[in-house]
Parts: sequence; structure tokens; C-alpha cells
Amino acid sequence: MSPLGPGGEFDLIRSFQAAGPPPGAEVLVGSGDDCAVLESGWVVSTDAFLEDVHFRRAWISFDEAGYRAVTAALSDVAAMAARPVGVLVALGLPHADASRIADGLRSGIRRACEHARCALLGGDLTRSPDRLVVNVVALGRAHRPILRSGARAGDEVWVTGVLGTSAAAVRDWQGGREPGPSVRRAFAEPVARLGEARWLAERIRVTALIDLSDGLLGDMGQVAAASGVAVVLDPALVPVAPGAVAAAGSRRSALPLALAGGEDYELAFTARQGSAESVAADFHRRFGIPLTRVGIVADGAGVRLEGDGADEFDPGSAGFDHFRAPPSGAADVGRPENR
Amino acid sequence: MSPLGPGGEFDLIRSFQAAGPPPGAEVLVGSGDDCAVLESGWVVSTDAFLEDVHFRRAWISFDEAGYRAVTAALSDVAAMAARPVGVLVALGLPHADASRIADGLRSGIRRACEHARCALLGGDLTRSPDRLVVNVVALGRAHRPILRSGARAGDEVWVTGVLGTSAAAVRDWQGGREPGPSVRRAFAEPVARLGEARWLAERIRVTALIDLSDGLLGDMGQVAAASGVAVVLDPALVPVAPGAVAAAGSRRSALPLALAGGEDYELAFTARQGSAESVAADFHRRFGIPLTRVGIVADGAGVRLEGDGADEFDPGSAGFDHFRAPPSGAADVGRPENR
Repeated sequence: MSPLGPGGEFDLIRSFQAAGPPPGAEVLVGSGDDCAVLESGWVVSTDAFLEDVHFRRAWISFDEAGYRAVTAALSDVAAMAARPVGVLVALGLPHADASRIADGLRSGIRRACEHARCALLGGDLTRSPDRLVVNVVALGRAHRPILRSGARAGDEVWVTGVLGTSAAAVRDWQGGREPGPSVRRAFAEPVARLGEARWLAERIRVTALIDLSDGLLGDMGQVAAASGVAVVLDPALVPVAPGAVAAAGSRRSALPLALAGGEDYELAFTARQGSAESVAADFHRRFGIPLTRVGIVADGAGVRLEGDGADEFDPGSAGFDHFRAPPSGAADVGRPENR
Repeated sequence: MSPLGPGGEFDLIRSFQAAGPPPGAEVLVGSGDDCAVLESGWVVSTDAFLEDVHFRRAWISFDEAGYRAVTAALSDVAAMAARPVGVLVALGLPHADASRIADGLRSGIRRACEHARCALLGGDLTRSPDRLVVNVVALGRAHRPILRSGARAGDEVWVTGVLGTSAAAVRDWQGGREPGPSVRRAFAEPVARLGEARWLAERIRVTALIDLSDGLLGDMGQVAAASGVAVVLDPALVPVAPGAVAAAGSRRSALPLALAGGEDYELAFTARQGSAESVAADFHRRFGIPLTRVGIVADGAGVRLEGDGADEFDPGSAGFDHFRAPPSGAADVGRPENR
């Protein structure tokens, strides 16, 4: 049983990954990372983006939905420290209002591709009975892709940017409130940390890298499992987004959004002691976002919280998992699917 | 206006393909073919497979749905004469009965991967509000991928196998009848012509190649558009599947299923006069399916029918297109979405 709780999405994913023949020699990383890694340095990822699961029409426009879907997929390319090359998009378009929805999506997809300087390389178009379905394949290239599996005991855990804004937006919407502009924007037009990941990989030895799509706790659980280590996070160090603090009323009530709210698309990485510290100020100047140490890697397994505030938070009920009952209490963070 | 009718899926696809920055030098074919072609010979395709659009629970099991989704995606790899390497699968699983659905899908995905000797390289798992969503990314590799754009006036048009069985199965289900075992099997467990495509490409100069996912008329419309030629099909030559003839009652009433019914996943290709003829007998012996000449390539544009039976069929209402009103009359072939 994983420290993130029994069963659920992660186990189900692993059971699928174990299915079928093993990959041949031209596949360098077959499964279990943000992207598959192919011979010649290509990395490939696929991401589903479903109406009423990942977004709702009442929350964002179709243009923003297209932007967000492409950016979320490109975030997996960032998580390999790879350069984005292109995307393929498979759409299931509801028949009602199909051309208006298509116009919006096309505009948002184009903006996201332009922002990341990558091309739309094809796709598939089909009807959907009612809800919009967007699936994005992201393709990138890396000389030395960074995996989830390289964390070692003694490494430090760092994150880019601030956490919890996207979850705060969802919580506002779910509470019947319109989020403030900056909080809303974090959800509607997230940023894939593509340049940031490569900048870091060129300057320090990043031992493991992941993007925060399922929440810091859940995603560091993936790093811990892939690396065969424990990750110990200090809640007091987590850079809770000011927008999340404002929306939640206090840092303490915003902490669950930062720890377990997914889809911030920031990066979390591990590095040898002191190495990230040496570039943190340059990073902040270059990208305008902080680089923050949030914990350490230790011998053992799983993710745990240690330090002030750790007792108030139940990691067993946190971490984004589509296939468990909605979490409750402190971990009942805003997610579209927690209806 | 295309000879396949105004607007609809194909125009919408083109409008998406035109969006965003052009691909860089490491993308050899960016859009408009069955797969994107990347430097180093990788080919990539994505296919959506949606409940109540591409299949219904009452028709096939989840095991068969998984098998069919993977096979349909691999058919795009066959359409490049590429070797399959692996697939990534993004699933939207309904919460109700998720583990039983997942078990079935996993089994079918595994069988399809084993059949094609390729690996499951990763994916994405999410909840779906009600309907199952399966998106498959297929990856393959080819020294010399065959595109849709190489057909020249004077070439012959050939198809593998027999056509119309999958559409006959859908028509039976829609009419409240259970299809016969071989007709049902064509829908539930189609075959991607992976070995067949490479065999042909190694022996003759295939000038253009496509898989029949949207129906012979619609797919040859793609070849005609990409190649800047006209395709002239002779209805009398089309190898209508015996199962479709039996289900429809006569060859004449089965012809629309063969011409416009999609998802047979056979191959259509063009080649210089006489070249396919020279290998047709060997092909039949090797693969147990016929190789049949069905028409010619001419100067001009679009697809047209000439010969016996051409007058009875209205190509303007045929060809699979998710975004037009359901076709009527002779072209009202069985498709899951023609409800």
C-alpha cells in the first residue's frame, strides 16, 4: 500500500503499464515517466482533457480550454527537460455548436503552440455525444532527458514558482464565486515551464524531475516510487501562492491547495545539496519566479510531511486521484471532479 | 467545394492543421497524412475512440473496445508502411464500474499490442463523467514512409481485402439484429494491415497509401486532395465483403457499405500500371486476402465513380463525416453515430 492510500489511479496506471510485450531497444524509457523516450532523443506524452472533469464551460472559454489542454501536455515535455517540437490534437466535438467550439479551441491551441514555439502536427476529429473531449500528444526532443528515477537520499527537493493557485480558482468556482483575475488566469492560461527546465538542466545536475499536474504530494510520490527513496516535505517551506492565500483566507487554509491541488504545472526536482541554491537567484532574475527548497530525499519509501503544520494535514487523503472517493477535510481541495 | 460535399470534417481538420507556427526541420511531414513523420524515421498518430460514437456497450465488450481502439491507431502506422513500435493510451474511465471496465480494456489493449508486437509505452488515466473515452497514440518507424501525396495520373488504385463488413455489423446492430460471427468479428477485432503494407512497399513502388478508416470514397478523397489528382473508382470492381452482401441481401445493396462504410482498416494504394498486378497472387498466398484493382488516377480533382452502378450511388452524400447531418438513402450506411 502506497503512503498515498490504497488502490486508485496510480496502481491502475501501473497495471496498464505492465500489460503487453516489453519495448524494444529503440525505446529508451517505455513507461512510468512523464514521457516515453525514444531513440534519437524524441520524447512523447499524451494527456486527456475532458469537459466536466478537467474544466467546465461555465469557468473558461473554449479558447482557454484549447490553450490549457496544449499547455498541460507540453508540461510533460518540460518535465523531461526537453525542447517542445509539436503537438497532435484529437478532438471529440459536441455536435451542438460545433463550429463555435472549434473556432475557440483552434484559437487557443494556436496561441499555446505559438507561445511554446511548436507546431500543430496533425490530429483526429470526431463527434462527441455531448461533452468536449480534447486529447493532446506532445512531442519534444532532448539530448539527455531527465527522469523521475534519479533521486538519491541526501538530495534536496525544489519547486519552481508558487503553488495552489489553480486549485484556488477551482475552489472559488465550486463555491459559486468568480476567482480574482490572477487566480483565474493561473487556471485558464497556465504556463509550461519549458525554458525553466532546460535552463536548470544546463546549469546543475538535476537528479529527478517531474511537473506538478497531480499535486506536490502525489507527484513526489511518483518520484519516490520511481527512485526507490522517501521524500520528506516541510509544509512550512512550501511556497503557497499569494492568490491561494487570499482566496482561502490564510496560509494555513491555503496549504492543502498547495500540497494536494494539482495542475499548477510548476516543476519539482531533486538535486545534490547546495547545487540549486547556487543558481536560485539567477533563476529568479531570469524567469521572474522563485526557486524554493521544500524538502529532502531520504532512505525509505513514500512521501511524508515533517515540520510545522505537518500534523494538521493528512497525506492519506491528499494527492489527486481520479479513482478514489472525493477526499474530505483539509485535503478537500478544489478539483473540477470533486463535485 | 469538395466532391465529397461542403464543409464538414475534412475542412475542419484542414483549418486546424493551418493553425500555429510551421514545423521545424526535424519534422518531415507535419500534417495532412495518416501520421506525422519525424526525423530519424519515427511516425506518430493519434486516434480518439469514444463510447456511443465509435462503439456502444451493447455491441462489444470492453476487451474488444480496447483491442479495436489500439488496432485502429496502429492502422495509421500501417498506412505509412511503417513498423509498429508502441502505443500510449489515454483513458477517461467512467467511475461506475471503473475496475471492471479497466480490466476489460487492459486485456484488449494487451492482446492488440501482442498481435502487432508492439509495447504499451505509457499513457494517462482520468475519470470520465459517464462515457468511456479511449485515445491511442501509435508510434512506428519507417526508412521510407509512404505518404498520401504521391499518386499520379495513370496510376492504378488498389485495395487490400474486402470492404463493408464493419459497416454491415453496425447496420445490423442499429436494426436490432445481432450480426453473424464473421461480420461481428470484423468490427470487434479488426486487423491493421501492418505486415501487408511493408510487404507491398518492399516489392513494388507504392506511390500513395492510406488506410480505410473513413470509407473508400472519403479516404480516396484525401489521397486525391493531397496528390492534386482525381481518383476514378469503378463500383463493379470494388471487392464487396461476402458478409456485407449476406447482411444487406445483395451486392447492390451492400455496395454503399463497401464504398462509404468506414473502419474496415484495409489499405488503399496507388501504383504504376501493372506493378501491383505482378505481386497480387503472391500477396493473396502470403496473407490470405485479395489485392484488387478498383480504379485509376486521372488529372483533375476529387473522387468520382464511373462504370456499372455508378449512377445509383450519390457520392455527395457518402463518405464518413462526423460533422454533417446523417446521410440518407443509399449512402445511409451503418455507422455508430448514425443514430
